[in-house]
Amino acid sequence: MSKIAIMGAMPEEIEPIITKLDDLNVVEYAANKYYEGSYHGKKVVVAYSKIGKVFATLTATSLIEKFGCDTLLFSGVAGAISEDLHIGDLIIADGLCQHDLDITAFGHPYGYVPEGEVCIPTDEKLREVAKKVAKAKGLPLKEGIIATGDQFVADHERKEWIGKTFHADALEMEGAAVAVVCSSLDVPYFILRAISDSADMDASFNFDEFLESSAKISADFILAMVEEI
Amino acid sequence: MSKIAIMGAMPEEIEPIITKLDDLNVVEYAANKYYEGSYHGKKVVVAYSKIGKVFATLTATSLIEKFGCDTLLFSGVAGAISEDLHIGDLIIADGLCQHDLDITAFGHPYGYVPEGEVCIPTDEKLREVAKKVAKAKGLPLKEGIIATGDQFVADHERKEWIGKTFHADALEMEGAAVAVVCSSLDVPYFILRAISDSADMDASFNFDEFLESSAKISADFILAMVEEI
Ligand SMILES: N[C@@H](CCSC[C@H]1O[C@H](O)[C@H](O)[C@@H]1O)C(=O)O
Ligand SMILES: N[C@@H](CCSC[C@H]1O[C@H](O)[C@H](O)[C@@H]1O)C(=O)O
Repeated sequence: MSKIAIMGAMPEEIEPIITKLDDLNVVEYAANKYYEGSYHGKKVVVAYSKIGKVFATLTATSLIEKFGCDTLLFSGVAGAISEDLHIGDLIIADGLCQHDLDITAFGHPYGYVPEGEVCIPTDEKLREVAKKVAKAKGLPLKEGIIATGDQFVADHERKEWIGKTFHADALEMEGAAVAVVCSSLDVPYFILRAISDSADMDASFNFDEFLESSAKISADFILAMVEEI
Repeated sequence: MSKIAIMGAMPEEIEPIITKLDDLNVVEYAANKYYEGSYHGKKVVVAYSKIGKVFATLTATSLIEKFGCDTLLFSGVAGAISEDLHIGDLIIADGLCQHDLDITAFGHPYGYVPEGEVCIPTDEKLREVAKKVAKAKGLPLKEGIIATGDQFVADHERKEWIGKTFHADALEMEGAAVAVVCSSLDVPYFILRAISDSADMDASFNFDEFLESSAKISADFILAMVEEI
């Protein structure tokens, strides 16, 4: 039977999921908590990684290697780059880049290191499931590139640069790390984000105000997907 | 019996190690190669992660979770911040920071995210082994903080900022990622770097010139440590 990993970065991003699980069992591992359980009869393991690329890589790897998950769904919030995206809107990644990876001193493009990829695509079948769920719920769903970096961006110029350089529509701090792990370990994965802010001057205030409500929008959508997988 | 992980970031950093192993067995895993073998009767698993924090996190985690290593030694090159450090000199980390981790928009210090640490200490016993080896070889060994980030720094101002902000003596692109993994998984670890450049205007030229020779200095030292563990 398939075992689905559901991952967030912060407690607020997974709380609306954990509270809906049956047969909950909490496992302490890697200085973190992993929530095993089931949802509509499907086996799931849920965890928040803590913020940033390194914690996200560790948690995604452990969900696969240690907990035996064979599919990974990420749920969380993001800053908007695209002007189409407003607070609470959902975006799914069709590809993920690391906007702060930079060995351009050696003539490489931004986001690239040898034997890596600038943009890593997500699983097409999971994206199709998401579109089906969105249709059933009557929810608009944007698809685009999400850029990841270890900085909370609250700066118009930096955000514009990321948008232009990576053709990115949204930005956050974990997605591309999960992408590297899942593509390396050959595990189908999916990244969903609900907009919490616009990565500009007001980003930190908006983030604090909308984290919970946007995280819940994303979490509810992910749970609906689990039913369809 | 103990199993020692030896990790580098680039092929050049582990080549001088692999060529010295007995009973070599190459395992393809996670879009990478892991070299199992033995050295002076000690079981080792050697791998280069590819460049940067995400690949380093994935590889360190796999070396522990998948290959069952219970000690991790990192060998590689770094840019000097401290003026005491010249090309070919060795530095061991007593602590590691992520210089590019930045959620200061929320009032946190640089390098910090909730439930994380700005500076993660390395294992004291392994540092003692290193000092013993250095003494036996008559080699000077600097101890200090190493700062890690996903950018190859070739800029005097940025380097000075990193030095001041984190009290760092050298900088590279993987150490602090390994530190997060090993401290989370409770595995003693050690980070050694030989200087390849000074993280300034000439960094990329120096790096290309001295990568191989400095990587070998670090690798030879790590192998001498394996004999003593
Ligand atoms: N308010 C927090 C910091 C949030 S950093 C931003 C997170 O959300 C972003 O969209 C990223 O994915 C991060 O996980 C604090 O003060 O610690
Ligand atoms: N010459 C390579 C880029 C090296 S990036 C720098 C690496 O060494 C540094 O000290 C870091 O640890 C990195 O692994 C290239 O052109 O791809």
